[in-house]
Amino acid sequence: MNQLYTDRLARVCSRLREQGLTQMIVSDPLSIGYLTGVWIKPYERLFAFYIRTDGKHIFFLNNLFVIPDIDVTKVWMSDTDDCIGIVASHVDAGSDMGIDKSWPARFLLDLMERNPGVRYVNSSACVDQVRSIKDEYEKEKMRESSRINDACMEKAAAFVKEGMTEKECADYIRSLYKEEGCEEGFETIISFGANAADPHHEPDDTVLKAGDCIVIDMGCRKDGYCSDMTRTFFCRKEDPEYAPIHDLVRSANEKAESLIRPGVRFCDLDKAARDLITEAGYGEYFNHRLGHSIGMQDHEPGDVSLANTAAVEEGMTFSIEPGVYLPGKFGVRVEDLVLVTADGCEVLNKVDKHWKNIG
Amino acid sequence: MNQLYTDRLARVCSRLREQGLTQMIVSDPLSIGYLTGVWIKPYERLFAFYIRTDGKHIFFLNNLFVIPDIDVTKVWMSDTDDCIGIVASHVDAGSDMGIDKSWPARFLLDLMERNPGVRYVNSSACVDQVRSIKDEYEKEKMRESSRINDACMEKAAAFVKEGMTEKECADYIRSLYKEEGCEEGFETIISFGANAADPHHEPDDTVLKAGDCIVIDMGCRKDGYCSDMTRTFFCRKEDPEYAPIHDLVRSANEKAESLIRPGVRFCDLDKAARDLITEAGYGEYFNHRLGHSIGMQDHEPGDVSLANTAAVEEGMTFSIEPGVYLPGKFGVRVEDLVLVTADGCEVLNKVDKHWKNIG
Repeated sequence: MNQLYTDRLARVCSRLREQGLTQMIVSDPLSIGYLTGVWIKPYERLFAFYIRTDGKHIFFLNNLFVIPDIDVTKVWMSDTDDCIGIVASHVDAGSDMGIDKSWPARFLLDLMERNPGVRYVNSSACVDQVRSIKDEYEKEKMRESSRINDACMEKAAAFVKEGMTEKECADYIRSLYKEEGCEEGFETIISFGANAADPHHEPDDTVLKAGDCIVIDMGCRKDGYCSDMTRTFFCRKEDPEYAPIHDLVRSANEKAESLIRPGVRFCDLDKAARDLITEAGYGEYFNHRLGHSIGMQDHEPGDVSLANTAAVEEGMTFSIEPGVYLPGKFGVRVEDLVLVTADGCEVLNKVDKHWKNIG
Repeated sequence: MNQLYTDRLARVCSRLREQGLTQMIVSDPLSIGYLTGVWIKPYERLFAFYIRTDGKHIFFLNNLFVIPDIDVTKVWMSDTDDCIGIVASHVDAGSDMGIDKSWPARFLLDLMERNPGVRYVNSSACVDQVRSIKDEYEKEKMRESSRINDACMEKAAAFVKEGMTEKECADYIRSLYKEEGCEEGFETIISFGANAADPHHEPDDTVLKAGDCIVIDMGCRKDGYCSDMTRTFFCRKEDPEYAPIHDLVRSANEKAESLIRPGVRFCDLDKAARDLITEAGYGEYFNHRLGHSIGMQDHEPGDVSLANTAAVEEGMTFSIEPGVYLPGKFGVRVEDLVLVTADGCEVLNKVDKHWKNIG
């Protein structure tokens, strides 16, 4: 394996040792790709990279998977093999076993039955924490993905017109991504007016009317790395009741971003933004976490929430996305991605975040 | 809840009782939708429908989910709650617990730690077997999805031309689906020439040349139900060495389809097709199962493989897709969906499956 992967694996093994583990089954295809350079979409088939701190790693593969030549022991299986039986016979049944957080119960429960004496532990953090610190290559990919997203947001804002449907706008954004040689990182959210009160509204046939708010939450995946940004506009004329709420949410976004540096705790970022919104009387209408980590996946472990007391580290990338949602009426969210630097953060999105009238 | 859902739930509970279970955590969003009419995309958040054979079901929901009013006890949670702690306190910690096959280890291991005295069992079959028997509404949806897929396959075959890339063809098929008001059910496979030797090849910039084989494996999701079909063509002129292999694979497809009726075992269908290919000397080049069940998901539990000794039942829908793959050279696959009837099967795809020259 090349040095990049050897180094990443060594960092994971070192964290496993810190947890008192000697072995782990990694099953998230992105984690496996990150650690080995082998990228597979296994669908429902078993695909696992078994890591041992003594270096005797094993790849468990279906013979339908086409992989590059790689210097790791491989165990090939077919659709009719007793796959978990094979895995069970290759792992150390006398030691605690680290398990990937996303491993489906059908594999895990089966393995537990084969090797019952073992303590099974969710050890995903050992991989996820390594993945959360982006190296120089990854930082550049994250910047590039957000550069594209910025350009597409500007075009989308210029495209949206009174009378259009949410679906039309979402389709346009998908076409922009395609032109840029990338794909949607998640299902684009376009919400007009009262639809915006649902933070996860799916674009439908709702038609844009003057005075509506317009939430655009969009992100692409370019060369395997994700962007994610939200801007909220008004159609043709701002609503005098809601424009100040937009200002409030933007201020909460800026407040949190101003505090980001290595050492600050995620929960304190959330609290700073939430306090501002709560003091203005809208606390109960900000009903989600402030943000989430991001990288090869649009949502990665590492919430920016009151529940996460971990400290921010240099090289992390996450979203800052406060919102206020008034049921049946209105919603606003302002979201950027940030990359933590040695003494602060680089905001990866440059699109102006003040409210403005479009359409 | 309306009668449709009450009936489906009753069938699942009856299967749970047969397995000696009184409770199960259903987490697959499609299964939950199927059983309750509540359709949510939870992403990484906890979303579970806790079924009890005594009827005291509970919905575990994040307060970001927007759901219709439904007569089931609901437990709402926020992003900062100890979600599994809440689940653990609501379930019966004195009885075996059925678990959904796809429930991620991060939830399952956590629940096992909270309620350690319980035996946890993969009880997905109780739901999956009910889902596998399509009712009249679902049968019509499956037919409609394949009708659309047939029409799009005919258009795609007419569109493909020498000099085009695989990606261009895949994009065209996506645009057809969009016109039909549906979406890709899985990533369309377009493979030219030697690329076809990888059954799961992803469309790339390979350019179509005269004499190449052309594998088109495509399916859409219409109103929540999936289609899936493969046809293999030649570009402009058939390859005299490979055309007979195409005939062989088509014969294997037809042979298996001719045997389908309630009571026949899945493994015997696979064997019938496989024997034909093996007798012709290509057995080692047919390296996957004969087919898979399908419905709301493109791949559902119920392999048509040598390992599945279960019997086919009326109302089931699955694929019959033998193939032969010659590494570095050529590949052919011929796939239909079938719907099992009282005394045979309805082949849902009508597109001619003999080889022909296109492009």
